[in-house]
Amino acid sequence: MINSRIAALRKKMEICNVHYVIIPTGDYHNSEYVSDFFRVREFFTGFTGSNGTLVVTREEALLWTDGRYFIQAELELKGSEIILCKMGEEDVPTIQEYLALNYKQDEVMGVDGRVITTSFAKKIKDAVFDATGFYCEFNDGFIPYEGIWDNQPKLPANPVFVLNGDLSGVDYKEKVLKLRKKMKALKADAIWLSKLDDIMWLFNIRGNDVECNPVALSYCYIDEDISTLMIQKDAVTEELSDYCEKNQIELIDYSECDFICSTPENKTILIDPQYASYRHKSILEKKNTIIELPSPIIAMKAVKNPVEISRMREVYLKDSAALTKFIYWIKNVKDKAVLNEYEVGRMVDCYRMEVDGFIELSFPTICAYGPNGAMMHYEATKESNSKLDNKGFLLVDSGGQYYGGTTDVTRTIVLGELTDEMKRHYTLVLKGMLNLSMVKFMYGCSGKNLDILARGPLWKEGIDYKCGTGHGVGYMLNVHEGPQSFRFKTLPGIDDSVLEEGMVITNEPGVYIEGSHGIRIENVLLCHKDIKNSDGQFMSFETLTKVPIDKEAVLVDLLAKDEREFLNKYHEDVYRDISPFLSEEEKSWLRSATTPL
Amino acid sequence: MINSRIAALRKKMEICNVHYVIIPTGDYHNSEYVSDFFRVREFFTGFTGSNGTLVVTREEALLWTDGRYFIQAELELKGSEIILCKMGEEDVPTIQEYLALNYKQDEVMGVDGRVITTSFAKKIKDAVFDATGFYCEFNDGFIPYEGIWDNQPKLPANPVFVLNGDLSGVDYKEKVLKLRKKMKALKADAIWLSKLDDIMWLFNIRGNDVECNPVALSYCYIDEDISTLMIQKDAVTEELSDYCEKNQIELIDYSECDFICSTPENKTILIDPQYASYRHKSILEKKNTIIELPSPIIAMKAVKNPVEISRMREVYLKDSAALTKFIYWIKNVKDKAVLNEYEVGRMVDCYRMEVDGFIELSFPTICAYGPNGAMMHYEATKESNSKLDNKGFLLVDSGGQYYGGTTDVTRTIVLGELTDEMKRHYTLVLKGMLNLSMVKFMYGCSGKNLDILARGPLWKEGIDYKCGTGHGVGYMLNVHEGPQSFRFKTLPGIDDSVLEEGMVITNEPGVYIEGSHGIRIENVLLCHKDIKNSDGQFMSFETLTKVPIDKEAVLVDLLAKDEREFLNKYHEDVYRDISPFLSEEEKSWLRSATTPL
Repeated sequence: MINSRIAALRKKMEICNVHYVIIPTGDYHNSEYVSDFFRVREFFTGFTGSNGTLVVTREEALLWTDGRYFIQAELELKGSEIILCKMGEEDVPTIQEYLALNYKQDEVMGVDGRVITTSFAKKIKDAVFDATGFYCEFNDGFIPYEGIWDNQPKLPANPVFVLNGDLSGVDYKEKVLKLRKKMKALKADAIWLSKLDDIMWLFNIRGNDVECNPVALSYCYIDEDISTLMIQKDAVTEELSDYCEKNQIELIDYSECDFICSTPENKTILIDPQYASYRHKSILEKKNTIIELPSPIIAMKAVKNPVEISRMREVYLKDSAALTKFIYWIKNVKDKAVLNEYEVGRMVDCYRMEVDGFIELSFPTICAYGPNGAMMHYEATKESNSKLDNKGFLLVDSGGQYYGGTTDVTRTIVLGELTDEMKRHYTLVLKGMLNLSMVKFMYGCSGKNLDILARGPLWKEGIDYKCGTGHGVGYMLNVHEGPQSFRFKTLPGIDDSVLEEGMVITNEPGVYIEGSHGIRIENVLLCHKDIKNSDGQFMSFETLTKVPIDKEAVLVDLLAKDEREFLNKYHEDVYRDISPFLSEEEKSWLRSATTPL
Repeated sequence: MINSRIAALRKKMEICNVHYVIIPTGDYHNSEYVSDFFRVREFFTGFTGSNGTLVVTREEALLWTDGRYFIQAELELKGSEIILCKMGEEDVPTIQEYLALNYKQDEVMGVDGRVITTSFAKKIKDAVFDATGFYCEFNDGFIPYEGIWDNQPKLPANPVFVLNGDLSGVDYKEKVLKLRKKMKALKADAIWLSKLDDIMWLFNIRGNDVECNPVALSYCYIDEDISTLMIQKDAVTEELSDYCEKNQIELIDYSECDFICSTPENKTILIDPQYASYRHKSILEKKNTIIELPSPIIAMKAVKNPVEISRMREVYLKDSAALTKFIYWIKNVKDKAVLNEYEVGRMVDCYRMEVDGFIELSFPTICAYGPNGAMMHYEATKESNSKLDNKGFLLVDSGGQYYGGTTDVTRTIVLGELTDEMKRHYTLVLKGMLNLSMVKFMYGCSGKNLDILARGPLWKEGIDYKCGTGHGVGYMLNVHEGPQSFRFKTLPGIDDSVLEEGMVITNEPGVYIEGSHGIRIENVLLCHKDIKNSDGQFMSFETLTKVPIDKEAVLVDLLAKDEREFLNKYHEDVYRDISPFLSEEEKSWLRSATTPL
């Protein structure tokens, strides 16, 4: 079936004089999660992972994916002609290297210019030019699935709702004024926005077109005078029309984006090359000057306003209480062998769904038992999951979207007997998590300066985890949000973002021992100004998450005095803030789960 | 006197149709220290500090300097018309901002194009253009002192010596081969070198034209075939001529640099804009394409080779022993009030001069008693210094140039009674120094990732120091060397350099309480590969400095267990390695100074 789809695609390539087709995973907005309409790469490969790019030539078909998916991709590609390219492995070229190696003069790349980002297109063009000296031609109107994918799902178009001031804190007019000031400082007359959460944040609206992200498919164009929101007709409610009229926002249909894009002339227009499609960039640059920069909204929305902060504090208490109830429940299941990961994951979701103000999950719940916990992005399914048992760790990483905030929390729960190594690893992870939570630092630090506080105790014993220590969290938006992060590596082209008062960020070190166990403890932190003196402005974190940390796995002797004291104080706060949400039985369990070490 | 010099300069400006004259502190090579010949800014201002830039217009004369020198500059400028511009203070424009604010169309900047760097000239031109829309004209042949400074000292020209393989470790031919490979990778046909320590390192030669830096005034031009060393005739010994002939190095007189610079055609030439003069850049770009990048030699020479490392280990032992002897001496002076800082500083220098292989100091010794220790760059003179007393701290920061390495070490020595605050501050500094020394980290970290280990204990108590935590150290070269450093701030345009095996770097946190006391403890670290496992390559440091740390100021209860153990192990090593250099009395004192805490 896959091979016949590829064959059909090749026929089309011949007719259209296209020599390479590049099919990434993203939607028109380079969103982290995509709706079924956009699963074109999946349609042509059968591979269901969340990251992968297919390249089809007249002779070959190749799929690039990352280490999380090597095993899964091998299984799912079996029987097809598609060759798996394991990203990051030695001797495996990157996509652009492959294209640069094979490209011959006058050959044409076929891409759906709406799903290829400006920066990815540039990478390919630069690589080909550097290697061959030829400017490679893009046919950006080549839609691979047209005429081949019969049962393609429809583009989602769910109604949008408007946040009132109690939820948004700052109204649209103030936000757009500030944005126009930033544009001016960057010498831009106009901005073209493609990133969905940027658009939602700016207009104080939310939608439901992307799984786990309360966003609506949309584009936005802003210049000195005009503010245009392009959104699907079916998403427009009366509330939204009224709101837009009142705020002088021009409402245009989503499908008119190319037309709107082609109207400005002689302007200097800012686009974010990570998100703006190659197609829109190509249209805009015909009659305008383009500045390619990260969208200024990314930094604006990362700093939460006082209303957002106070709503998040409330939401984190409720969300923490839900997870605490779950922990009480699982701890009290006598024979854990009757449970499996999938069911237990759904239990987590049920506790969360009962919370007042719940909208949806902020990402698919990870519920991983024993060795499965060592796979960072493990997802148990109804068909494939492990049974629990009265021993080892259960790792639960989960979060919700609520009216009033987005949550993300991980706990590693002791289900019974542990090895000494497990306890040691758990305690090292805990030390790191605590050290980062209690740091006091000078204003001007980025996550890069602080990351070692979380990793240090593990590094001391020759252990590392192959991911960042933390990411920004949206407000009723994406659970992964920039620009701030905790990581130690420099990523090319990505500036370290200074930690500002009002930023929210996760703190989630871990240990992942393949075939044995996985440990992660994750709290969400809010960055604050601390004391200011002649040496300058100090900063510190407030922990928003209030879920007990399983003391059964802690080797108390490994904790330094300040770590132990901080943990005891944390547990005191957890009991004080969460117990009002609990039943008497839950409360009395929480009391003992939070007694000082 | 100063005013009449400025008046003479203004007369010259009128004759030459120049409207602004910019006089920085540097020599032709942007060296950290300069010889008397280059003290032009000092001649026109009377200000003797090591950092300052004078701008003279037809109406005004302004001196910019940094916070270290505000008090001194105010004193030294008294009676002159020169206005002091305190860099970094609010409402004080930068030099380029001042010029941009005042510049009018067709006005001309007069500069000695040999002492203005490419990057500083660009900064000024960009600022003027951004603010006014005019390209400002530079007259780069305007030599401010010509015809005004009668008794200008001569350009120094001391004989050069060649390092043999036992000192250099890698011969010139191997170095230049590697450099040419790097040039090729950067797509450069040729390189123009201006930075003196880069040139010394490449040719394995050393000179004596700059105080504290064993370098000779020189330039270098390298392309695929030719290697040209431009150096003063008086610096050329028979040894050097023979060596250059043997190695196909073309020896040209230093004064021919402009001519050599004007010969290449149609080449792509790499220059380092931080060091290449505006004049040479202007000449080179007439007939060639210029690539502006940090000189590749900076990264090459930062990684010490095995011979350099083994020579440095030897030198650090001898240097540590000298300082230990000094500490024994000062500790045993009964009545410290008979001593002053200046004399004590000379004592430090005497102990060092007695060391076999000593060449010169690597920087002027800082010997600061009591409140003077709070001034980071304090330098006592014969005329102005403080008396010591049997209480408080004496801060001694010193180092030497030896055949076999360059040293840098700071100890804060207890002279008698201390306050509790002093002890607390001392212990916090010590904690930071120890934490950074004993860290284990993943390959890929830069100093920016690790800096918080040194600052963390101070930050926790709301204290910071306003400088980096550490800098690279040269090998028989500059005591301050890049590209690696320990700092937490991002400096614009400066990449964080990954810590590589073989890099040498100082670790020197401190506390500076104005009017009260200053504390700094500085060891020099050598970066090593540690274990490698499936998580990757770990790195750690070896401490080269072996000087006892004054235990009398340590509050043992503030030290964590691992800190105490590391300090005790360090002192064990100090005794083992240093005692062979000591007399019986010194040895028995060192034994008690290094007993475990």
